[in-house]
Amino acid sequence: MIIILKPHATEAEIALVVKKIEGFGLAAHISKGTERTIIGAIGDERVLQDRPLEAFPFVEQVLPVLKPYKLASREFKPEGTIVNIDGVLVGGKQVVVMAGPCAVENRDSLLQVARCVKDAGGHILRGGAYKPRTSPYTFQGLGEEGLTYLSEAKAETGLPIATELMDPRDAPQVYQCADLVQIGARNMQNFRLLKEVGCRRKPVLLKRGLSCTVKDLLLAAEYILSEGNYDVILCERGIRTFEDATRNTLDLSAIPLIKRLSHLPVIVDPSHATGKWHLVAPMALAAVAAGADGIMVEVHPHPEDALSDGPQALLPSTFEKLMNDLSKVAQAVGRSL
Amino acid sequence: MIIILKPHATEAEIALVVKKIEGFGLAAHISKGTERTIIGAIGDERVLQDRPLEAFPFVEQVLPVLKPYKLASREFKPEGTIVNIDGVLVGGKQVVVMAGPCAVENRDSLLQVARCVKDAGGHILRGGAYKPRTSPYTFQGLGEEGLTYLSEAKAETGLPIATELMDPRDAPQVYQCADLVQIGARNMQNFRLLKEVGCRRKPVLLKRGLSCTVKDLLLAAEYILSEGNYDVILCERGIRTFEDATRNTLDLSAIPLIKRLSHLPVIVDPSHATGKWHLVAPMALAAVAAGADGIMVEVHPHPEDALSDGPQALLPSTFEKLMNDLSKVAQAVGRSL
Amino acid sequence: MIIILKPHATEAEIALVVKKIEGFGLAAHISKGTERTIIGAIGDERVLQDRPLEAFPFVEQVLPVLKPYKLASREFKPEGTIVNIDGVLVGGKQVVVMAGPCAVENRDSLLQVARCVKDAGGHILRGGAYKPRTSPYTFQGLGEEGLTYLSEAKAETGLPIATELMDPRDAPQVYQCADLVQIGARNMQNFRLLKEVGCRRKPVLLKRGLSCTVKDLLLAAEYILSEGNYDVILCERGIRTFEDATRNTLDLSAIPLIKRLSHLPVIVDPSHATGKWHLVAPMALAAVAAGADGIMVEVHPHPEDALSDGPQALLPSTFEKLMNDLSKVAQAVGRSL
Amino acid sequence: MIIILKPHATEAEIALVVKKIEGFGLAAHISKGTERTIIGAIGDERVLQDRPLEAFPFVEQVLPVLKPYKLASREFKPEGTIVNIDGVLVGGKQVVVMAGPCAVENRDSLLQVARCVKDAGGHILRGGAYKPRTSPYTFQGLGEEGLTYLSEAKAETGLPIATELMDPRDAPQVYQCADLVQIGARNMQNFRLLKEVGCRRKPVLLKRGLSCTVKDLLLAAEYILSEGNYDVILCERGIRTFEDATRNTLDLSAIPLIKRLSHLPVIVDPSHATGKWHLVAPMALAAVAAGADGIMVEVHPHPEDALSDGPQALLPSTFEKLMNDLSKVAQAVGRSL
Repeated sequence: MIIILKPHATEAEIALVVKKIEGFGLAAHISKGTERTIIGAIGDERVLQDRPLEAFPFVEQVLPVLKPYKLASREFKPEGTIVNIDGVLVGGKQVVVMAGPCAVENRDSLLQVARCVKDAGGHILRGGAYKPRTSPYTFQGLGEEGLTYLSEAKAETGLPIATELMDPRDAPQVYQCADLVQIGARNMQNFRLLKEVGCRRKPVLLKRGLSCTVKDLLLAAEYILSEGNYDVILCERGIRTFEDATRNTLDLSAIPLIKRLSHLPVIVDPSHATGKWHLVAPMALAAVAAGADGIMVEVHPHPEDALSDGPQALLPSTFEKLMNDLSKVAQAVGRSL
Repeated sequence: MIIILKPHATEAEIALVVKKIEGFGLAAHISKGTERTIIGAIGDERVLQDRPLEAFPFVEQVLPVLKPYKLASREFKPEGTIVNIDGVLVGGKQVVVMAGPCAVENRDSLLQVARCVKDAGGHILRGGAYKPRTSPYTFQGLGEEGLTYLSEAKAETGLPIATELMDPRDAPQVYQCADLVQIGARNMQNFRLLKEVGCRRKPVLLKRGLSCTVKDLLLAAEYILSEGNYDVILCERGIRTFEDATRNTLDLSAIPLIKRLSHLPVIVDPSHATGKWHLVAPMALAAVAAGADGIMVEVHPHPEDALSDGPQALLPSTFEKLMNDLSKVAQAVGRSL
Repeated sequence: MIIILKPHATEAEIALVVKKIEGFGLAAHISKGTERTIIGAIGDERVLQDRPLEAFPFVEQVLPVLKPYKLASREFKPEGTIVNIDGVLVGGKQVVVMAGPCAVENRDSLLQVARCVKDAGGHILRGGAYKPRTSPYTFQGLGEEGLTYLSEAKAETGLPIATELMDPRDAPQVYQCADLVQIGARNMQNFRLLKEVGCRRKPVLLKRGLSCTVKDLLLAAEYILSEGNYDVILCERGIRTFEDATRNTLDLSAIPLIKRLSHLPVIVDPSHATGKWHLVAPMALAAVAAGADGIMVEVHPHPEDALSDGPQALLPSTFEKLMNDLSKVAQAVGRSL
Repeated sequence: MIIILKPHATEAEIALVVKKIEGFGLAAHISKGTERTIIGAIGDERVLQDRPLEAFPFVEQVLPVLKPYKLASREFKPEGTIVNIDGVLVGGKQVVVMAGPCAVENRDSLLQVARCVKDAGGHILRGGAYKPRTSPYTFQGLGEEGLTYLSEAKAETGLPIATELMDPRDAPQVYQCADLVQIGARNMQNFRLLKEVGCRRKPVLLKRGLSCTVKDLLLAAEYILSEGNYDVILCERGIRTFEDATRNTLDLSAIPLIKRLSHLPVIVDPSHATGKWHLVAPMALAAVAAGADGIMVEVHPHPEDALSDGPQALLPSTFEKLMNDLSKVAQAVGRSL
């Protein structure tokens, strides 16, 4: 940690900072510049995270040197992590496709989509039983009934299930059905929920919050890892910006950035990011070209009747074409589908 | 709801939209322009919120006419709501000051701050026992022990207590202590938590999420109101923007905007918004000038030792001066402190 | 244009709006809903753009139906535009690569990069002679001297030249050298400069401003087109968001979005978007997968000595590898390099 | 400047960085931590601004210690600057009000507003003759004719004139009329225009760009100051964020922040910031409470007929009331109107 003092800081003020630093078992290294004095705190500065040296009126700025996350960093684990979702490997050579309806709406419609995903070559079935909705007056999900249909779809197609956990009190039911437990974007910093999935032993799909930096995302992953669960997949799904022609702004540069900073696999959800079905396929292809380990897309047989997020759902036929195109781009970047 | 069709939409396509609209018990009103046909859905369009007409490829745009929230709107309840927090009224002529440490750290320090808040004329004591922290390695709050100290501080000073609920499972303990239950910014769209505080009968302080619009905030309030709890106070505490010289960007225009759209009281938290103690007082004054019903600020006797958010805490002496200055600005805009 | 009145608007107020609309030669279409009256203005609503009906206190909202740009829209010209830059076609089947140093620094270094771009298969040489720099104390470009070197590089390699025009007073010199005249992101809404390049007859590369929506970008293009110059290439180069791990956030969804809204070609500049050399190649590949008509990247033989933007420059060897990888992705999406 | 090397940087790499630093006449100070080596560059680091040490692959991060601006900083000039606009002092005890129409539309209307501004106690008349408009199809301003009317209004009322310069080629005419030359938000980083007004000797009103940080704003001011013109007033007028209920998000915390970083006066334009007339007054009051040296607001006798930005214009009667309210808030914070 580097502490930059204001110009004209006195010797007594410098001594005060040094004393604080040493009180935490760190060594202090003083460097007097032409305009300002700088003090380096040497040792594991994470003990200082909570100690707000910036509150001293004679301190101008405090700059951390180390990353605030550790277990999630590539320095800690140089080789990439491969997460096994009931036999489907995410983070390896294969690009993994997770597809399905936004919400489970009824048994027939779910089974129809599940078959379509399977037939087109998709690897994992997604579908929400508990739905976080902006308005209390819109469809909130089928709850446990939805989980039953998901299990049935798995039994028929063999596709592992990805579904969202919104509330720690639902964990028993959700964990019985899910092979990949999703933490939604709006819950990325629901730290108690992160601890809950960290204590359990199933892979977690952690979606980036709408106003969260990559650093925030890796710190959220650190919550899960630090509880002992290392099977975390990160998901870029768009951030909130001033651009209103798309639902969110898909930040694909997060993929190579995360790959450099962390060992965790990264997938992309172009459906929620763009909010428009005609932008989903180009963004899915771009995600794979940028190095994503997989994509998650929404498929619905009748988007205009969907109970949630219809405008961003692909028709089964469009999904089939996408699978074909994805395969070509995956090969172009040395991967397979 | 207004449905704008693409140029050259056919009669059959128009008929399809009309049929959908009528299927929901609404009347359709067709208006053929020079370039596009527009269809209005007349009746309570909220039934259509879930029906994504935009998914039709021949629909260009769907524009809602009504606000998606109802109970939170000023149309629904023209006079302003006044929330009673154990005798302190928020939303009336008085500007209410909630102050205290970011986190409850220990008994002595809390009592010291509580006395200071009381002596300076503050109305409500704030303090976090459960703390949502970005990093798992920083102080997570004292939990139940912290609640005990808060209750003790109330017993001594008579100040009502505002404290945060992070997890529905903590509700029994938190509700025993709190007079005002805070939903933090990161949980503004934790819809299950919103339903939880909506079912209970204590005032709720709902903080605006970092990437949430005023519309999102009012929809989150609607979750609470629609469960039957009408005692909701909204709190502007900064949104996330590209400006990195402050922790967040305080959006004070949200105050008069919310006052126009809703009957709910609005307060401002300049401490979290700015992240810097020297910006807190000017922003608190500005908030009151803009029409805020109260402010929430952090006070700590030794900010450089604070276990969380020290750089934004006011010293007791600075807080006293702020109370004095606030009183003058409150009078200038026809209110009192 | 759709005018939504407040609830309880009177007949006299409705009549006032209708009179205003008819005063502009448009027809008014009144639709009374259950809660609000809505008035449609039928005809070319662009005459109303300047007439702020929203200023009436009884008007709640004004919603445009038509796009505010016309010549730039795909409705106006369904087939895609192909821009010819001294023989290089942008907007056709080929993906075009523009590469070179951020700034022209000296004769030798420019010629060295030009040869490298040529040898690796690049199509256009980029290089700034006039440089918009955030600080007045950093290198401001060589000016006319730089233009001379660019012309020399073209003479030797045959590569057409792309360079920036910052000030209308420099137009005579810049137009003598440039084959593609660049308007930088910070000048995207320098409307006088847009009119200047609109009046002249050379292709223009219009970079998206850091805080500009796709609609703003198309309106800026409209300024150029409406002066008679139809040879405009749009360039996505990142927008400003809260994410600070990259210089800007590259908005690749703008590519398919613009392709849908407009007939103009679109290229991507991953160097300025990311600000980090190690993110440039993945984002260039993603751009091509998403449908970009070309990319613009910075190449420098010694990035650590570059006079501007060194951290985002590719080494010649990295650029060669990128050309090879780009070729594969271009083929995967049915294009060539 | 602090250079943080990657873990495992070799002695040879460290030596390379030291050599670079010393080559610029700075001293290098090496500090070996437990995980990383850090090198401080001691001396005036501004010589390094252009030298991108971050381009070295073994450098992890480069952190500047000094502010990149000098003349604009409060360190350079501790006492506040007072700018004299033909007798009106901005930056002193008085809060200055600049008011008038967005655009000069015709002679009569301008004179009417000018009298109203004068009568209500306003200090400076604002009005645009050259208008930067997002669309080429909207009113672009009267140009020189507008300047004539402004001069006439000054002759009659005695109010100094603030008007915008968009293009260096218009400087002769604009400087003949203006007492305060405005650089609009969209031109804040039009560096050639900044140099133009820096070379001349009239006060400049520099509006913050929609996507510009406070640091960017101070660097833009530095362009003007470094050309020799020290009479610069900064203007906060809203930044672009995801919130779409207001035109922009007014960042009032920029006022106390700038006051701390710089000696230049700061005013606020709540009209452009909010885009809605009913938000203008509360935000003007808040600006003064936060410490602004003045405000700039738009006034129009018939907002619904305004040729630009009608929805944000105040009626003369509302403006009069605002002046009255402003006076009270100014007194509450120890200033006068």
